[in-house]
Amino acid sequence: MSVIHEEDEVIILTEKGKRYSVKVVRGRRFHSSEGFIELSSLIGKPYGCVVTSNTGARFVAFKPTLVDIIMHLPRITQIVYPKDLGYIILHADVKPGSRVIEAGTGSAALTIVLASYVKPDGHVYSYDIKQEYLSNADKHLSRLGLKEYVDLKQRDVTAERFDECDVDTVILDLPEPWKVVEASWEALKPSGRFLSLSPTVEQVVETVESLKANGFGDIQCIELMQRYIRAKRGMTRPEFIMRGHTAYIVTARKQVDKE
Amino acid sequence: MSVIHEEDEVIILTEKGKRYSVKVVRGRRFHSSEGFIELSSLIGKPYGCVVTSNTGARFVAFKPTLVDIIMHLPRITQIVYPKDLGYIILHADVKPGSRVIEAGTGSAALTIVLASYVKPDGHVYSYDIKQEYLSNADKHLSRLGLKEYVDLKQRDVTAERFDECDVDTVILDLPEPWKVVEASWEALKPSGRFLSLSPTVEQVVETVESLKANGFGDIQCIELMQRYIRAKRGMTRPEFIMRGHTAYIVTARKQVDKE
Amino acid sequence: MSVIHEEDEVIILTEKGKRYSVKVVRGRRFHSSEGFIELSSLIGKPYGCVVTSNTGARFVAFKPTLVDIIMHLPRITQIVYPKDLGYIILHADVKPGSRVIEAGTGSAALTIVLASYVKPDGHVYSYDIKQEYLSNADKHLSRLGLKEYVDLKQRDVTAERFDECDVDTVILDLPEPWKVVEASWEALKPSGRFLSLSPTVEQVVETVESLKANGFGDIQCIELMQRYIRAKRGMTRPEFIMRGHTAYIVTARKQVDKE
Amino acid sequence: MSVIHEEDEVIILTEKGKRYSVKVVRGRRFHSSEGFIELSSLIGKPYGCVVTSNTGARFVAFKPTLVDIIMHLPRITQIVYPKDLGYIILHADVKPGSRVIEAGTGSAALTIVLASYVKPDGHVYSYDIKQEYLSNADKHLSRLGLKEYVDLKQRDVTAERFDECDVDTVILDLPEPWKVVEASWEALKPSGRFLSLSPTVEQVVETVESLKANGFGDIQCIELMQRYIRAKRGMTRPEFIMRGHTAYIVTARKQVDKE
Repeated sequence: MSVIHEEDEVIILTEKGKRYSVKVVRGRRFHSSEGFIELSSLIGKPYGCVVTSNTGARFVAFKPTLVDIIMHLPRITQIVYPKDLGYIILHADVKPGSRVIEAGTGSAALTIVLASYVKPDGHVYSYDIKQEYLSNADKHLSRLGLKEYVDLKQRDVTAERFDECDVDTVILDLPEPWKVVEASWEALKPSGRFLSLSPTVEQVVETVESLKANGFGDIQCIELMQRYIRAKRGMTRPEFIMRGHTAYIVTARKQVDKE
Repeated sequence: MSVIHEEDEVIILTEKGKRYSVKVVRGRRFHSSEGFIELSSLIGKPYGCVVTSNTGARFVAFKPTLVDIIMHLPRITQIVYPKDLGYIILHADVKPGSRVIEAGTGSAALTIVLASYVKPDGHVYSYDIKQEYLSNADKHLSRLGLKEYVDLKQRDVTAERFDECDVDTVILDLPEPWKVVEASWEALKPSGRFLSLSPTVEQVVETVESLKANGFGDIQCIELMQRYIRAKRGMTRPEFIMRGHTAYIVTARKQVDKE
Repeated sequence: MSVIHEEDEVIILTEKGKRYSVKVVRGRRFHSSEGFIELSSLIGKPYGCVVTSNTGARFVAFKPTLVDIIMHLPRITQIVYPKDLGYIILHADVKPGSRVIEAGTGSAALTIVLASYVKPDGHVYSYDIKQEYLSNADKHLSRLGLKEYVDLKQRDVTAERFDECDVDTVILDLPEPWKVVEASWEALKPSGRFLSLSPTVEQVVETVESLKANGFGDIQCIELMQRYIRAKRGMTRPEFIMRGHTAYIVTARKQVDKE
Repeated sequence: MSVIHEEDEVIILTEKGKRYSVKVVRGRRFHSSEGFIELSSLIGKPYGCVVTSNTGARFVAFKPTLVDIIMHLPRITQIVYPKDLGYIILHADVKPGSRVIEAGTGSAALTIVLASYVKPDGHVYSYDIKQEYLSNADKHLSRLGLKEYVDLKQRDVTAERFDECDVDTVILDLPEPWKVVEASWEALKPSGRFLSLSPTVEQVVETVESLKANGFGDIQCIELMQRYIRAKRGMTRPEFIMRGHTAYIVTARKQVDKE
């Protein structure tokens, strides 16, 4: 049974719809604008249990999902948004057993998701120029039990090549991905997947032109727009607030012109 | 090395951007409006190889990705679109090791994707009312080596319960998902994920109202809009053609009010 | 020449992109977080002139456009958004000379726009149940020199008919537009335009079903999504913030089944 | 009363939702895949009348609106779409009495709309490099009784200036609008509105950079996405087909740095 233990992380969803990532520490209280609860009262209860705050508000304590984990990471850089993460996993063809290069590691949101999906036989090679980001990633991967699936490497990948070859997928989340297109081609196995994320149109154009010139085919670029719908009988409408943009996603495949 | 063998399925992408799923049979030709190639000429070449048709057009033979496989399934019912599939995998928290109920099986696009991501330790229980759909799913799962990860069950799930309990996720792609909300609650483990796909607003409202009344929390509804961008230096713009709608996606989590 | 006079309203756009509607009063200062200017310094200068605040920030004083006027109205109710206003004018076929019924008047944003476009030979008949809204509309129409083009009428149009007949267009911005469909048919000339704005899907469905049952044809429903683009060489991307929804727009035309 | 006369143009909407622009000629039949009607049967009937084809299909004969007229113009170039036309009219501040420069004339869709809204005291000065487009515009403006509101001028506006000065608005629908930014500034009155339409991002960036460098302020760029909603009780959803892109719209206002 899925029961809450001491030291577990839980997602507390309040009656007004706010959500918090909280560690269940005996003797501590969780405080919010809707009142507080004693965290020890959660211990031994099933995940998904409903508890009442001192002011009478209903709180629910859920088990964190992968999306919860991502959304509660400290944002030391811009994170990749969940709407884009799902697309990336599927369209970069990342599956259990895949060998994947990622650059850069950044806030480690994508690293964590990749590690979760290549399990148990695959591997992630994650590069970043900043040691600070790699240390942060290391901490979170350890906490989540994902460290054995990831190698973290400090490197300026615009200047130096990747160590790996014949990988299934290369994913770039870098300011100048076009500088890493050749290195990506060399690291990929034939027909392997390339994917790059960029917020601006100019980055997309540079990347696509570089892919065309460097042996990639099936080049596509998309954007995803996600809209929340407030579904309530007699009052259903899209939410007024919407994120207008996160990033463009470029995908391609390695071609082999000569045998 | 990733080399093309006789009887392999390949994705042939033509110079004009058309794509075909083709079985490499010795002695056969692949014909298109851009000329033909001898399929035996592909044997022994690496995936991603470029070959020239009799009329001089460049064709590339890629190894099928999961998205390719989905997009080339026979569409005996409306398939779930790739933009939604990525979202579903991530937001239904389907990962290697997950135990997932799916209803209905339909064209098996989602079944194949679920099986690919719960591997190697998880399992999919896929229900459909029509034996015809289950037989089709069985055929494709066998062809793709995914059959051991899926149980296919013929049942009207609006009338009878699921066999499983304590599953991680229930995913519904049914005309009347609200009739299966109670059964989903019973089959799920505490804090487990519910996800439902529906094309119409009225289906969404019925489902959400049923979820509220039957012990689910953290209920959300979204839609994803995907737009292709034609990235070309000096001529970059969104594509004129866009799909305006596929389905709304409702997600929720099982709450436990009493211990 | 377009020169700024005492007592004119101007739109002040600050260097950081904030905009204010300001009356040019001699002896007063306009204060903002980017410093202040003496309003008398604007008198005699051309519209569009650039002035410098005491802290060195550049302010521009533009002549208010119709959109500026709408956006700076006091929002006593939800206003109709500019993206929707342009669509309404064109798709309700409102032109110089048109006779238009509007219900309800609300914040008068649409009333002001309608009056501006039916000029000089057309007329707007604007109904509202609340005298308070009509008084507010009266004040703003007078200020803008548009009062002669508008009749303001206090009435519950869901209970009582319109006074006019043979009008070109009826536009409804009401909580229950379906209750005014029959009255709209009677007020319209044959082939006349009906247009209704509603935030929720349920309102749209009720309205469309009522239109079908009450002699209207060519019934359509749309939504408009507007996205701002940050265009800057090398850094071009859609803005992150976007309004996800304002209202659905239903249009129809009066049919005449019997002569 | 709005009665159909011989030689009138009517919009025939068929039962299946197809629409045709038809001239009512005595003795002629209107043929469609849903049967035919005798056009003389429409004469003397009110607009909006319902008639039955020889095969029993219901046709409605509506009076053409401005949008109908635009949508049935021969498309000798890409037309400006109605969703964008409404935005343009309002955001370019085109009103009865406005003096507006347009370049280029193209298919005359925008010219017709501008002429319809500046009536009866305003004027449109429409430039095109191609005499063929101007002759086409002349023909349609004459047919619609709008010719007195428009001057058509054959000119390469990227090479030569406009003849007018102190106009309220300049609207550009040209491949290289940035080459006409200076000429637009000179033609506009202080605080006057500039608006430009372009399909590609690169055109937008060039135009915006030129506006910044040439005395314009309040520069904005937007795109509008229009989605049709199929509203039907119990089956409401967005239409599957949607136009993904038409054009970006750039707006700005003339600044005056020195008196």
